[in-house]
Amino acid sequence: MTMLDRAQCAALDAKDPLAFARARFDVPEGLVYLDGNSLGALPRATADHLSAVVRNQWGQDLITGWNKHGWVDLPRRLGAKIARLTGADQDEVVVCDSTSLNVFKLLSAALALQPGRRVILSDTGNFPTDLYMAQGLADLLGRDHRLELVTPEAVAGRIGPDVAVVMLTEIDYRTGRRHDMAAINRLAKAAGVLTLWDLAHSAGALPVDLNGTGADFAIGCGYKYLNGGPGAPAFLFVAKRWLNETRQPLFGWFGHAAPFAFETAYQPKAGIDRFLVGTPPVLSMAALECGLATFDDIDLIEIRRKSLALGDLMIRLVAQECAGAGLTLASPTDGGQRGSQVSYAHDCGYAVMQALIARGVIGDFRAPNLMRFGFTPLYVRYQDIWEAVAILKAVLAGAEWRRPEFSQRAAVT
Amino acid sequence: MTMLDRAQCAALDAKDPLAFARARFDVPEGLVYLDGNSLGALPRATADHLSAVVRNQWGQDLITGWNKHGWVDLPRRLGAKIARLTGADQDEVVVCDSTSLNVFKLLSAALALQPGRRVILSDTGNFPTDLYMAQGLADLLGRDHRLELVTPEAVAGRIGPDVAVVMLTEIDYRTGRRHDMAAINRLAKAAGVLTLWDLAHSAGALPVDLNGTGADFAIGCGYKYLNGGPGAPAFLFVAKRWLNETRQPLFGWFGHAAPFAFETAYQPKAGIDRFLVGTPPVLSMAALECGLATFDDIDLIEIRRKSLALGDLMIRLVAQECAGAGLTLASPTDGGQRGSQVSYAHDCGYAVMQALIARGVIGDFRAPNLMRFGFTPLYVRYQDIWEAVAILKAVLAGAEWRRPEFSQRAAVT
Repeated sequence: MTMLDRAQCAALDAKDPLAFARARFDVPEGLVYLDGNSLGALPRATADHLSAVVRNQWGQDLITGWNKHGWVDLPRRLGAKIARLTGADQDEVVVCDSTSLNVFKLLSAALALQPGRRVILSDTGNFPTDLYMAQGLADLLGRDHRLELVTPEAVAGRIGPDVAVVMLTEIDYRTGRRHDMAAINRLAKAAGVLTLWDLAHSAGALPVDLNGTGADFAIGCGYKYLNGGPGAPAFLFVAKRWLNETRQPLFGWFGHAAPFAFETAYQPKAGIDRFLVGTPPVLSMAALECGLATFDDIDLIEIRRKSLALGDLMIRLVAQECAGAGLTLASPTDGGQRGSQVSYAHDCGYAVMQALIARGVIGDFRAPNLMRFGFTPLYVRYQDIWEAVAILKAVLAGAEWRRPEFSQRAAVT
Repeated sequence: MTMLDRAQCAALDAKDPLAFARARFDVPEGLVYLDGNSLGALPRATADHLSAVVRNQWGQDLITGWNKHGWVDLPRRLGAKIARLTGADQDEVVVCDSTSLNVFKLLSAALALQPGRRVILSDTGNFPTDLYMAQGLADLLGRDHRLELVTPEAVAGRIGPDVAVVMLTEIDYRTGRRHDMAAINRLAKAAGVLTLWDLAHSAGALPVDLNGTGADFAIGCGYKYLNGGPGAPAFLFVAKRWLNETRQPLFGWFGHAAPFAFETAYQPKAGIDRFLVGTPPVLSMAALECGLATFDDIDLIEIRRKSLALGDLMIRLVAQECAGAGLTLASPTDGGQRGSQVSYAHDCGYAVMQALIARGVIGDFRAPNLMRFGFTPLYVRYQDIWEAVAILKAVLAGAEWRRPEFSQRAAVT
């Protein structure tokens, strides 16, 4: 294979059909940001929009903003935008609460549909909060429900008649390994098992086809590839066939059939709104609205094509530049098996990542030894990958990552 | 009683020791805003602070903002500010999620502490979402727990050995009637009953003494008197004696003992942090931080004094100006029995309120027939009360409220 150089990477940017989209973001000059899978970059429109919502809508119109500015419709309006990104219909998605809470709601709904089955099946690579929520729910129910974890490869073989629901994150947050959503959904359906997909590392990063693959339930995150800002609200999907069949146990007034009738007995609203609980967080939702607008007129096929090209480039450049430097690729080399990130194991991964960050290459670290690099095709350039690998090479060749301050763990890593 | 006039109201403002605090808010010129009990007005500092958080913290520092700007500490930092307003210790309060979700967490925690008891006691005047959450939890547990509602006056007499927890909103959202928190807590303690107080219309409106009165659990709202903006995060309080005794079933990663160890088994963090669930909504929290800052150097005794004076003035002026116009006072005349609002029943209350709003007097309506007027002592002036009553008098005397558009219900009323 021929050697690649910086000029060739620049040439890839010059012909990138998504290059224009970087102008939709304020990415700091000089920074190589490869952590959009943890917190998306700031869309250029967000600050002004949020300021207008605060000063004009809240400040001037106060309580009347709920109707006048459609605050009350935000959960559905944003849900409809996410529906396009995830292969859902507009009335199947709503934005609300956190991914953790949405796991609880949909897992409760799924278990209620499966009275004779006790197993919540997931894999050991799933994101911990999903597993914790399942444990909390099982404890609370106290009816012998149990969370069973198998390796990602063993999930398909474990789907069977005692399983109520299989709950998986499509893209593994550590390695980027991708589950075959269509295959799992097919197996599950044949076995009478419901599916609950966590799209935290999928929505906005690659085309998702919830309805086309027959998914039952899904949840996802607003602050990663959807660029909604730190702690942005999450979303949830319920397939139409279940919408009015299911209930979730968090009976809040925004899920009530007539919230402003102030009745004492709960009656769920028809459709997806019954999955709402409390008052929608308008300011956070306004920021997420700008995050979602960064996808306007963008073809997800283009996103996926560039995402894989960025990942392939990273893998090739690391092999070319950093051979023998102690890095082990932890992600699938086959793009079809991979999400929008590439991870490397390194014995001192935490310290190396801190040294990279100090040099302006932002990735992150996941225990026990993984350095993650995420690719957001809307704003990451091919040159950024060159730059990241050049700095990674320099860091690994030098001694700076051995400095004591780089091995001290911060609160959030 | 002598007649009051506008000049006398202006004189009350001139000697108001809290008059300076109005400059902490952007209240639109010409508006009489008496709905801070539904959505607090915009603090003057919020827009700039939020803009700085968005542009500088998120935009420039991206993922590193979690540590660099202390985002990870927001739930506790804001909780500590609310502790001062509610008679709690700093390590007993945390800001998170919505009031509805916090009811679910604390009610679950309370029921788990009371294995032999099945009754959740509340009153018919409680805010519906609290009742709904209790119903949802009881349904989910399926162990004969039941929500029992009695009239507010009958609560004290119903506290007994079959009651697990008494869940009450201190200030009735419709009438402003105030429960005697100290007396209820005393009775409950004697009967082995736990208490869960909803402070939605209390926190920031009057001094609350959670620890002084022996409360066990409490929740409250960020977007009413605390001025956090539409849909602001809520808070919860757990008395120190229960902090490490209790668990709540929404096991989220932010409540985990080591969230960034990414373990597969849930282990609750020590203390109040175990009541956190998902990733904190940083932007909404930043706005709430400004809302809470409007209380800096403010004495809650002064707030209460002015709140009652505003309410007494409203009652006196309505009696003086609007006698015979079909209004019936629905709030206690005795200030000690009342929160920071005054409500009137009127057969066409909804339409009359819409006509008032069209004239720039913002209160709100609660079914079946109540017009609510809330008093936020930090920005409401005595002159505003004069103005509101003068316009109310004019509206009631005229025919404009009979216009068809004023009787059409909006989505949010």
